[in-house]
Formats: sequence, C-alpha cells, structure tokens
Amino acid sequence: MAQASVPFTLAVDAMGGDNAPKIVLAGLETALIHHPKIRILLIGDEEILNQSLKNYPRLSAACTVRHAPESIPMDMKPTAALRVRGSSMRAAMEAVAAGEARGVVSAGNSGAMLALAKIIVKALPGISRPAMAAVQPSARGDVVMLDLGANIVCDARNLVEFAIMGEAFAQATLSLKAPTIGLLNVGSEDLKGDERLRQAAERLRDSVLADSFHGFVEGHDITAGVTDVVVTDGFTGNVALKTGEGALKLALGLLRHVFQTNWLTKLGYMLVRPGLRRMREWIDPSRYNGAVFVGLNGIVVKSHGGADAEGFASAVDVAIDAVENTLNDKIRHRLEQLGMLGQPVEAKEQE
Amino acid sequence: MAQASVPFTLAVDAMGGDNAPKIVLAGLETALIHHPKIRILLIGDEEILNQSLKNYPRLSAACTVRHAPESIPMDMKPTAALRVRGSSMRAAMEAVAAGEARGVVSAGNSGAMLALAKIIVKALPGISRPAMAAVQPSARGDVVMLDLGANIVCDARNLVEFAIMGEAFAQATLSLKAPTIGLLNVGSEDLKGDERLRQAAERLRDSVLADSFHGFVEGHDITAGVTDVVVTDGFTGNVALKTGEGALKLALGLLRHVFQTNWLTKLGYMLVRPGLRRMREWIDPSRYNGAVFVGLNGIVVKSHGGADAEGFASAVDVAIDAVENTLNDKIRHRLEQLGMLGQPVEAKEQE
Repeated sequence: MAQASVPFTLAVDAMGGDNAPKIVLAGLETALIHHPKIRILLIGDEEILNQSLKNYPRLSAACTVRHAPESIPMDMKPTAALRVRGSSMRAAMEAVAAGEARGVVSAGNSGAMLALAKIIVKALPGISRPAMAAVQPSARGDVVMLDLGANIVCDARNLVEFAIMGEAFAQATLSLKAPTIGLLNVGSEDLKGDERLRQAAERLRDSVLADSFHGFVEGHDITAGVTDVVVTDGFTGNVALKTGEGALKLALGLLRHVFQTNWLTKLGYMLVRPGLRRMREWIDPSRYNGAVFVGLNGIVVKSHGGADAEGFASAVDVAIDAVENTLNDKIRHRLEQLGMLGQPVEAKEQE
Repeated sequence: MAQASVPFTLAVDAMGGDNAPKIVLAGLETALIHHPKIRILLIGDEEILNQSLKNYPRLSAACTVRHAPESIPMDMKPTAALRVRGSSMRAAMEAVAAGEARGVVSAGNSGAMLALAKIIVKALPGISRPAMAAVQPSARGDVVMLDLGANIVCDARNLVEFAIMGEAFAQATLSLKAPTIGLLNVGSEDLKGDERLRQAAERLRDSVLADSFHGFVEGHDITAGVTDVVVTDGFTGNVALKTGEGALKLALGLLRHVFQTNWLTKLGYMLVRPGLRRMREWIDPSRYNGAVFVGLNGIVVKSHGGADAEGFASAVDVAIDAVENTLNDKIRHRLEQLGMLGQPVEAKEQE
C-alpha cells in the first residue's frame, strides 16, 4: 500500500512487548523487505541490541542504535511510567518530538504509550482527544474503528474529532478516496441514543463531512461493513472490538470441533483446508495488528504486546503508510475546513 | 427446564410481530406440547383469532380470546404507543397488572412494550430501572447479559440492580444454583473504567453478592463464558449484543464461501453437515429468542419481531420458566438482603 517517497526515519521501541527485542528485530527485518528506503532509530539496551543485530542484516544496514537504560513493564501504571526518565519508549517519543523521526512503533504498555505520546509528541492543534484507531474485518472489507479505548468518556466534540481522524485514517491506510462514516448507536433512527450522540450527528450533518456521514450504525453494521469508518467513545469501542474478536474466536473454536468429530469429518477438513486458511487469515486479529494513536504531532503506532514478527511487521507497515500517505495533513486540512483549529481544547470528561 | 406446578395463565399479544397472528398462534401451539397445563389469554382481533384458531387444536383448548380493537405498529414511537388505548399489547399488560395473568409475551414493538410495562405492570419495589435481559451463546454454555438496551445511561445503583436481576434470571432460566457475575469493562484491573463502574464493583464486593461477583470482565470474556452473568449499561449491552451476533454472522458467511468453492469443497460440506448444523444451532440467535424485561411486577417477555414459530415458542418457554422458577421472588429476596427494598427509586439519568 505504501508509495515510493523520500526516505524517512521511524523510531522503534525495541524493548516493548512480551518477546522484545527478538520479535521487534525480526519484525523490522521483515518490514524492510518492502520498505528498503526506511531508516530505523532503534532504541533500547545498546549491548543486547548490538549483539542481536548480527542476525538481521537488512535491519543492521538500515538502523541506528540509541541506548536507553530502562524499559517500561507491560503492567506498569501510566502515571508511574511517566516517571521512568530513561525508558526506551520515552526516548522514541522524544525522537519524534525532536523531528528526528516521523513516527514511533512500540509493542509496549498501551496506557504508558498514550500518556507519553500526549505529553511528549503532543496533540495536533484543534484535537482535544487523541484516539486509538485500528482496522477491523467485515464482510465488505476492512473497516476503521475508533476510539478503541483511549478515552473512556467522550462528548459530542470528541466524537466529531474521531470522525475527522477516522476519515483521514481510512484514506491513508485503506487508500479510500471518500470513506463513509457511521456513528455507533443502539439504533439507526435519528432519535436513538443519548444527547451527546445526537449532537455529534447534527454537527457532522451540518459540516463538510455531510456527504461522507452515513448517520447512526448498530453493532452488527460493523462486521457487515455498512460504513468504512465506525466512530464511538473509547469504552464502547473497546468492548465492541473485544466482543467481535471473541465471537469470531468462538465460531472458529466450534468449527474445530466439527472437523475433529471422526475420520469422515477429518477428510472433509482436508478438502476445504485452503479455503479455511483464507477464512482464518481474513478474520485473524494479527493481520490487523497496528493500532494508531491518531491526533498527535507524529505517527504513533501500537503493536499488540503478544504479536509475532509478522504482526510487528504489519504494525510497521501501518506506520509507514500513515507517514507516506500524510495522515496528519489530511486531519489538519479537515480541522481547518471545520474551523476547529482555533477552538479551545476541552480537557474535562463530561457526558 | 420447566417444573411441574399449578396451572397459571400467560397473556399473549397475538397482534405483535412481523407475521402476527400466524406465527404467534403456531408458536403457542408448539409451546403447549411441553406445557399442557398452561392457560393462554390470547389478545387481539377477535374475529381474526377465532377464525385462525381452528388450525390450532391444543391452543384452542388452552386459550381464552380477548378482543382488542387496535395493535401497535412496529415503528411507532413509545410515547405514541402509550396513547393507543385499545391496543392488544396494553390489554396484555393490564391482564398482568390485574392478576389475571402471571406474565405476558409479545413479539411487538420493544420500545412500546417497555414503556407500557413500566406504566401498567410497574417496577418491583426497590428496582429503579427495569432492564432487558437475554441469554447469549458462549464456549462454556449459555450466558445471561443485561441491560440490552432498556437504559441508555446508567449509574452505579442501576448496575447493582442489574447484577441482582441477572443472578436471579440465570437461576430461574439456566437453573444455575450459584451463577457468577461479571461487570463489563475495558479491562479486568480494579482501576479500569469510569467512577460509576468502580462504585458498582465496590458495592457488589461489600454485599451478599460478594461470593458470586467475579469482578470486571472484558468483551471477549462474554463469548468465552468467563462468568454466567454479564452486567452492563443498556447502551454498551445493546452494542455488544449486536456486535457479537454480527461477528458470528460474518464467520458463517465466510464459511459458506469456503464450502461453495468447488465440487471437492462441496463434498467436504456433505461430510461435516451434521456437525455444522449443531454449530449453527449453538450460535443461532433464534435459539436464544425471548428477552425478559426484568424488575417488573410480573414476567414480561419480548420475542424478536421476525421470529418464526419455533422462536416464539422458545420465548413462551422463557416466560414459563421465569414464572415457575419464581424469578421475581428471587429478585425480591436479594433486594431484601441488600436492604434496597426501602431505598428511594432514582429516576434521573446521571453519569
């Protein structure tokens, strides 16, 4: 999906994730096959990294190692993580803030990542709440959903910002010219939901986003692919994301039983195996690895902590697509059109 | 699941649903096979009903027809529905309020049903917010989830009430002695979520429900069957319910493609067909038809508007189980233990 472009640097937190730095290095080695021009600022324990790099020739050629004495544990509270001055994650964020790197990728602690990104990389002017966005499978193809958990309580303005960021994200990572946007609700009628949702819908209908705004969508519309972008608050988005993944897991689990019943069903399995593999790939969460904290002065991508090398590589792809397809310029452009650039940033959590 | 007991009457709105009264009558005819002692107060257009009843001998023998000149359209707003004095749905609720029937079943307009139930059947003393509860499939068996959409905004007390009602519902309809209860959140750690959730969790931990309260659960825990009951607000519950159903539908849709690829995959299908049928039945929403508006002075069951006769029959089963297994007595008992019977009922919608 990435386009030819001038080389740029990505800062990578080599110490984040369940199997760091091994998975991180292997993932980068894979990602560099398709992106030979990218430079990597590899941040972590210098000694460990320089030793391991021997096994990754492409990465060794493309990266600069920067030492960071500490790393943030996966279970550390964000407030505590902010106090770890020498962490590899913080150093990666600082590289973006300093303009040394266009984006950062980490498989580390999400809460810590969001907190550090907000404080060091900082929100785009006009964005009051950076959000977590990612791509989900649907019957019609990929669907962008946000917020996936960055903001538990949101107001109408936050939802409008999410719509802007979601549209830009779909354009940048799914290469859609004019993605359609849906606002997640308990029904599609205009009167459904709470005041906050009705206000957000009204603002979108009266804006330059009117043509792309489909209106309210329901839970089943996400996997049906009714819209390219699904906008919701971080609480609902997080629950919907995990509920959908859980349901698909249930279906695959039941399917396994079906095929393991007896030798006839096992033969049946042999006959449909290629198709089943395609089906699993279609709905495999790791294929969708790489959530973006959108609305920041740089591209901040979160890889799943338990992702394998392939998974980490796709998170790196997401970061590269976002940079090359100018995700943030697209967001700035919309904020400008909507006259939201100047508006004061609300920080309070209201309903 | 139903136990032998004294005969009682169910009021049935014969005119509610997409294919009323045909599906309603056929469903009742089926339900009566397993519940020969039940009496049915069949409410709707007398002329139409008396004509159609000829084809349903068991129902004819078990029912009394009551004329209602009007019926509530599926798309009518609740406020408007409340003004339709002669509706079959209202008459069914009145029969419960008057003590003529122990419960009501309708496949009609949900919003209208909830509004009429609150005004005519009325909430149990101590319950500030009746909720919509239903059973969902999981890898470990059936799971009760509530609220599924009756209350869009909820406070900590509402969630505690839902936990009480969910436990009683699981005992009455799933015959579980000591069901476990989970509070739906974005993470399982105590500090996750908003104040409302942390307060509800605290109240449950300090109550007689402490042993059954598992703590916070996440979206994927619903289909994993981590707890027997999943408690959440009506907005999140409605989204989670529909997202899960949508994801299962996506999986089955992709599976259809897999088997239709070529003659070999079609042969494969023949070999696993029985297992696939069991799998579809396991996750088939119609098997779970029959949502209960819990927390009312009577059993109020909502059948899906598009349910077939089998589906309507299972909604009737749910109503019968709830009555015979004394769902409301179980709720009253817990409210008593929790000292919530006397507490003033909050009506305001706060966050």
